[in-house]
Amino acid sequence: MFEALFGTTSAQAWLTALVDAEKALATALAEAGVIPGQAASEIAAVPADFDTAELGRQAVSVGNPVVPLVRRLRERVSADAGRYVHLGATSQDIMDTAAMLVAKNAVDGMLVDLSAAADACASLAREHRDTVMIARTLMQHALPTTFGLKCAGWLVSLDEAAENLRRLRFSAQLGGAVGTLSVFSDTAVPRLFAAELGLDEPVIPWHTNRTRMGELAGAFGVLAGVLGKIALDVTLLAQTEVGEVAESSGGGSSTMPHKQNPVRSVLITAAAKRIPGLVATMLAAMPQEHERAAGAWHAEWETLNSLCGTLSTACARTRDLITGLRVDRDRMRANVDMTGGLVMAEAVVTALAPSMGRATASEVVTELATSGRPFRAALLADPRISLSEEDIDRALDPAGYLGSANEWTDRALRR
Amino acid sequence: MFEALFGTTSAQAWLTALVDAEKALATALAEAGVIPGQAASEIAAVPADFDTAELGRQAVSVGNPVVPLVRRLRERVSADAGRYVHLGATSQDIMDTAAMLVAKNAVDGMLVDLSAAADACASLAREHRDTVMIARTLMQHALPTTFGLKCAGWLVSLDEAAENLRRLRFSAQLGGAVGTLSVFSDTAVPRLFAAELGLDEPVIPWHTNRTRMGELAGAFGVLAGVLGKIALDVTLLAQTEVGEVAESSGGGSSTMPHKQNPVRSVLITAAAKRIPGLVATMLAAMPQEHERAAGAWHAEWETLNSLCGTLSTACARTRDLITGLRVDRDRMRANVDMTGGLVMAEAVVTALAPSMGRATASEVVTELATSGRPFRAALLADPRISLSEEDIDRALDPAGYLGSANEWTDRALRR
Amino acid sequence: MFEALFGTTSAQAWLTALVDAEKALATALAEAGVIPGQAASEIAAVPADFDTAELGRQAVSVGNPVVPLVRRLRERVSADAGRYVHLGATSQDIMDTAAMLVAKNAVDGMLVDLSAAADACASLAREHRDTVMIARTLMQHALPTTFGLKCAGWLVSLDEAAENLRRLRFSAQLGGAVGTLSVFSDTAVPRLFAAELGLDEPVIPWHTNRTRMGELAGAFGVLAGVLGKIALDVTLLAQTEVGEVAESSGGGSSTMPHKQNPVRSVLITAAAKRIPGLVATMLAAMPQEHERAAGAWHAEWETLNSLCGTLSTACARTRDLITGLRVDRDRMRANVDMTGGLVMAEAVVTALAPSMGRATASEVVTELATSGRPFRAALLADPRISLSEEDIDRALDPAGYLGSANEWTDRALRR
Amino acid sequence: MFEALFGTTSAQAWLTALVDAEKALATALAEAGVIPGQAASEIAAVPADFDTAELGRQAVSVGNPVVPLVRRLRERVSADAGRYVHLGATSQDIMDTAAMLVAKNAVDGMLVDLSAAADACASLAREHRDTVMIARTLMQHALPTTFGLKCAGWLVSLDEAAENLRRLRFSAQLGGAVGTLSVFSDTAVPRLFAAELGLDEPVIPWHTNRTRMGELAGAFGVLAGVLGKIALDVTLLAQTEVGEVAESSGGGSSTMPHKQNPVRSVLITAAAKRIPGLVATMLAAMPQEHERAAGAWHAEWETLNSLCGTLSTACARTRDLITGLRVDRDRMRANVDMTGGLVMAEAVVTALAPSMGRATASEVVTELATSGRPFRAALLADPRISLSEEDIDRALDPAGYLGSANEWTDRALRR
Repeated sequence: MFEALFGTTSAQAWLTALVDAEKALATALAEAGVIPGQAASEIAAVPADFDTAELGRQAVSVGNPVVPLVRRLRERVSADAGRYVHLGATSQDIMDTAAMLVAKNAVDGMLVDLSAAADACASLAREHRDTVMIARTLMQHALPTTFGLKCAGWLVSLDEAAENLRRLRFSAQLGGAVGTLSVFSDTAVPRLFAAELGLDEPVIPWHTNRTRMGELAGAFGVLAGVLGKIALDVTLLAQTEVGEVAESSGGGSSTMPHKQNPVRSVLITAAAKRIPGLVATMLAAMPQEHERAAGAWHAEWETLNSLCGTLSTACARTRDLITGLRVDRDRMRANVDMTGGLVMAEAVVTALAPSMGRATASEVVTELATSGRPFRAALLADPRISLSEEDIDRALDPAGYLGSANEWTDRALRR
Repeated sequence: MFEALFGTTSAQAWLTALVDAEKALATALAEAGVIPGQAASEIAAVPADFDTAELGRQAVSVGNPVVPLVRRLRERVSADAGRYVHLGATSQDIMDTAAMLVAKNAVDGMLVDLSAAADACASLAREHRDTVMIARTLMQHALPTTFGLKCAGWLVSLDEAAENLRRLRFSAQLGGAVGTLSVFSDTAVPRLFAAELGLDEPVIPWHTNRTRMGELAGAFGVLAGVLGKIALDVTLLAQTEVGEVAESSGGGSSTMPHKQNPVRSVLITAAAKRIPGLVATMLAAMPQEHERAAGAWHAEWETLNSLCGTLSTACARTRDLITGLRVDRDRMRANVDMTGGLVMAEAVVTALAPSMGRATASEVVTELATSGRPFRAALLADPRISLSEEDIDRALDPAGYLGSANEWTDRALRR
Repeated sequence: MFEALFGTTSAQAWLTALVDAEKALATALAEAGVIPGQAASEIAAVPADFDTAELGRQAVSVGNPVVPLVRRLRERVSADAGRYVHLGATSQDIMDTAAMLVAKNAVDGMLVDLSAAADACASLAREHRDTVMIARTLMQHALPTTFGLKCAGWLVSLDEAAENLRRLRFSAQLGGAVGTLSVFSDTAVPRLFAAELGLDEPVIPWHTNRTRMGELAGAFGVLAGVLGKIALDVTLLAQTEVGEVAESSGGGSSTMPHKQNPVRSVLITAAAKRIPGLVATMLAAMPQEHERAAGAWHAEWETLNSLCGTLSTACARTRDLITGLRVDRDRMRANVDMTGGLVMAEAVVTALAPSMGRATASEVVTELATSGRPFRAALLADPRISLSEEDIDRALDPAGYLGSANEWTDRALRR
Repeated sequence: MFEALFGTTSAQAWLTALVDAEKALATALAEAGVIPGQAASEIAAVPADFDTAELGRQAVSVGNPVVPLVRRLRERVSADAGRYVHLGATSQDIMDTAAMLVAKNAVDGMLVDLSAAADACASLAREHRDTVMIARTLMQHALPTTFGLKCAGWLVSLDEAAENLRRLRFSAQLGGAVGTLSVFSDTAVPRLFAAELGLDEPVIPWHTNRTRMGELAGAFGVLAGVLGKIALDVTLLAQTEVGEVAESSGGGSSTMPHKQNPVRSVLITAAAKRIPGLVATMLAAMPQEHERAAGAWHAEWETLNSLCGTLSTACARTRDLITGLRVDRDRMRANVDMTGGLVMAEAVVTALAPSMGRATASEVVTELATSGRPFRAALLADPRISLSEEDIDRALDPAGYLGSANEWTDRALRR
């Protein structure tokens, strides 16, 4: 029921990957001259149309679906070719290779969405390079910044998360029963196998060296954090009291007609909350016994499915979120002004620092800022403040206190 | 593809629970006199046969499947009755109540399996009350114990895990849009609603007080740890070099004809490894904003599904594992003896303590135990050892150094 | 450097607990007649003043600090008494018992703070039973509620979290090397030992049955979620744009004189974020091998320290937070009104339902609510709205649409 | 008490890093001409000798130790120089920069130990290139492999984990109150600041873009998994029943004189178990609000401390473990033979495949392998087996069925 809401990895995606791995093995064995080309051709012609639920049920007695799949594959080819199905491979060779294919496909899709989301951030950053808004620290108004810089920050983080994904190693697995290629002993086969599938060839089989899975989990964890931060910012900025941004279309309520919920951000947040626990599971499963683990390996599969499905959906949704984001400049400006200039206190200190020293200036300004009186009036009235009305108004102008905001935005856009 | 291997919570389970919640609401409203009995009867007659995939897709724009479900339900009843479908409830009322129903059903099933597994442990403990085996600490032979006591330990832990499940609160949720029952303001309705569903009535609505979800996760976490410990022990005892137990039937290998893998234990271990991360997710989702969370709530659903599905399957498999466990007494005894009595060193120290003091005895015995010589011969030959050969043999007899093992086993069986 | 900020469990707390365990063992052995009373008296007189850093260093070669501690203890008593120090116990007996003492002390302190925090919530709930504020769902204005009900929700959750703590089992551990009491075989000793320390006596030794640790972790996880929710609410309500509550005194900024940060809530939130991962660690450490684990047991100690230290501090801080919370009723009321009555749309639908049917009413009201026109004026002007101006104003009055808020608050206060 | 056992990050390490950051800021400001060189010199001369416990206590009211540290620093320099301490920086600039310094130092130390551990693996792999041992899958004897290949696997994983560490970005943080450098607006300063500290200059300030922290956590998680796998293998191989390796010196027992515990492996395992939960915390803290988080940021500090301390110690211990590992070739060989050739069943199938087809061969061999009769005798006696005694003995020779083990080992050694 929750597949569309939160994403999933389909049984068919796994089936296709498993069958592709078995086909690539036959092809590689034929290319290396280990088995007849005819057998490989027959095997390569079998469509990936097996009953995944049945394979799943048959997997229970042996612990993975490769054993029943091999049986099914053999039924589809001649007896001659059947002898060469799965030759020299162990179940883990096929499962790990399929897992890499499933993950790679998912990551490729994520990268497309992340790139589009980053482009949308860049457009917003450019458009709002000079849109003044309040920066908030610990959820309190701090100093002015620009919405352009906020978008530039999102942009940089999306690019960094994508870069992590691009660096991942998707490696084929082919070592035979215990990683020694005992049946055919020809190390050309793993190379040809990897090439056939568009995967990397590892230095040696990695049956119980799970760095690849851990790295995948780590990159996914970082990505989830990046998406979660953007969704969190949007949710906060879309609060009724803040109202600075809104999603392109709001989610309705089953009971309150006036509600327009930030439903994309909510669902991205939900996804982001689930990832750290899944990453921990994948990492906790890394210490695997001897030459094949008794459980830790099996713990990876559904964890990988949840990670890939959830993040694929969250990436697409983030792209949609940023692309359609509606920005209310007037509300941003009104919010900057809502404290009557108090957020410019640092600027006033800076203006006073040359004449009275930063420390004294800070004390005096803090006193006035927390006096309860309107800040501008208090500044004008206080004899210790040696600034002209014009100087005070200049110090109180948020657009004049943006520091390097524009330079940062431009830097981020020059990526 | 992995549903049978690792368990799942079906879409139909959710649909039934969601529809049951809507029906119970109508019934409760009718009982309280808020809506006509005829409307409630009509609503209660609608079968839970909606297309869950379609509901799932329609859920995306609003963030949960209740809104589309209510639409579908209204289509199935008269216009008159349709006005009373979902009256006064918010989506979260229905989702949370359904989640409680789904969880309660899962837990009820787990309790049946846990009870059977505990009974099987008790049988083993009784049968092997006097079966001497080596106890291992930090994976090294330590002292003798009995297999009965090991099973008694499993038994106690299963009972404790079940007790945690039995203590869980499964509470109905009915507060309306913001928890104030704004539409009908009749606190009899939540009471009738809970009673209709066989759930507890909470003190007040618990929309953003997620203690129930946290407690569920905690109890599930403990259960997973208990099952994981049993599976780990079996896996270790079934090692080729140890060979003290075997599963009723082993999982074959896709490549090695002689292998008999402890496949139940492996799959239980896989389940146990996944639970802590899922528990962390559920706990991390507990801080929920204001009167309804913007994402943390939504993060619960798939997490709950994974928890319930995985643990239900693991409980059933543990029951099967223990019920069919094959125990090799001879191998147990042979393993006790494989260090030539070294594991009885503590017993020898205890026998020597009255005459030479425990500290000196410990020093002398350690010296002999690490000398490389056969331990019994070394003891007989050493002039510092003031024990007769008979005394030495008594001290070296593992069956005579079981301490309170039997008393503990009996205590555990008297539960 | 971060002890005061986030709490810690002191080395002295562990030392005291370890020494107390060794003393209680001697006392129990003497009471059971296993060792001379004089020896127990000597041992009981040794102060817990050992150098914890040195014990820590000496722990490395054996894996725990009990072995060096026993050596130190023996040096402090006569040779005669020295023979009876640690008699029949294994390191894990002393470590686990000490862990239970450390945890119990921490929990006792938490319960005091939780009770005071709950009392403060109750006071606030009573005082603000009729303080109208806006309820927010998915961070958007929803319907009116009362601040009293919000505090009642906090109160209920604090009580539930405390109840979980109160239910924890703190059990002594005494089984000897492998849980069989091989050295003295007198099951009265574990009973006397537990009684001496004010701990429960377990059914049988629980060396590798870690349900107690898992339950502790689970209860701590729930508590963290409860504290985190309160801190999150305060942080959100204290936002500059919301301004409905403030902490008794704000944390200053190193650079912005006007800032008053909700520093207690921030630190409680930091604590709450760290707990789920620690809980996952404790649960993941539950499957422990055979009669003593090779690492999983050792993983508990620092995890327990972090959990106890962090949560003790967070409980004290929550008490301080709620006790000193400043509430701005006027701002609450102003915020209710900021959408010009839109949040009363459901109330208008309810008022219209009898005449035009709930579905039609909902459609019409949604149309007007999203029209952009002032809501009240739009209602007055629309010919489909069959309500008098008085009826409309009554429907738009938030204080008149609080449903069962007061009844819920009263229920929570009757706890 | 547990610092030496599990590692820690010292308060002094943080103090030094914090003070270094403040000094580098002054130096950078002077280099950029923002403040007088004399002031920078004075600031740079202050030793990092403040009372960390006191700073920690004073941190509570503001939420971090930078505010009190700045106060202390100002007291140590002339009033003139004091005005320039911390100029233009926000607390997070200093905290984040210090965190990067602390982490970088820890990682530099880990890399030294990892490199030495990898060298030790390479030596073992070279030395045991031809040492035949049994490979175990799902904890059951599978086929022969070499201890050299096992060490080669450890080697590759250590190198991969180290490569991840080497790729980490340690970036200075300098953005001022809200990331805009509002006080001095000179983007040369962050560049000079980073250079002064030997850190990277980020594209723009990364106050609430926590990719760096997430990547650090991810790399640490992978490392922990790698170390945990090695420790797990050693623990399993050191089991009394297996006895193929031993640590250079065993940890004694407080009660059993004959025990030699694999204490290094045990403590490395304990470390590895704690990391996934800590990684999850760091990742869960990534979504940080607006321009400074209200708690998620603060959750990083102790988490980072635990990660760095635990892993530094675990790396050193792994180096020590592998360097001193004692290998028992005879026991390895004896274990290969303990099933009477059953583990060579796949080899027999391979030998029979050309004549009778792989499927039939597999069936026949499985029948004989599970018959309970001695395998060699059964093969010799069975009329279906068309192999000579010599052929059978060749097929049963483990050293002749190592497949590509040596080629893989050599590949790993050519890194």
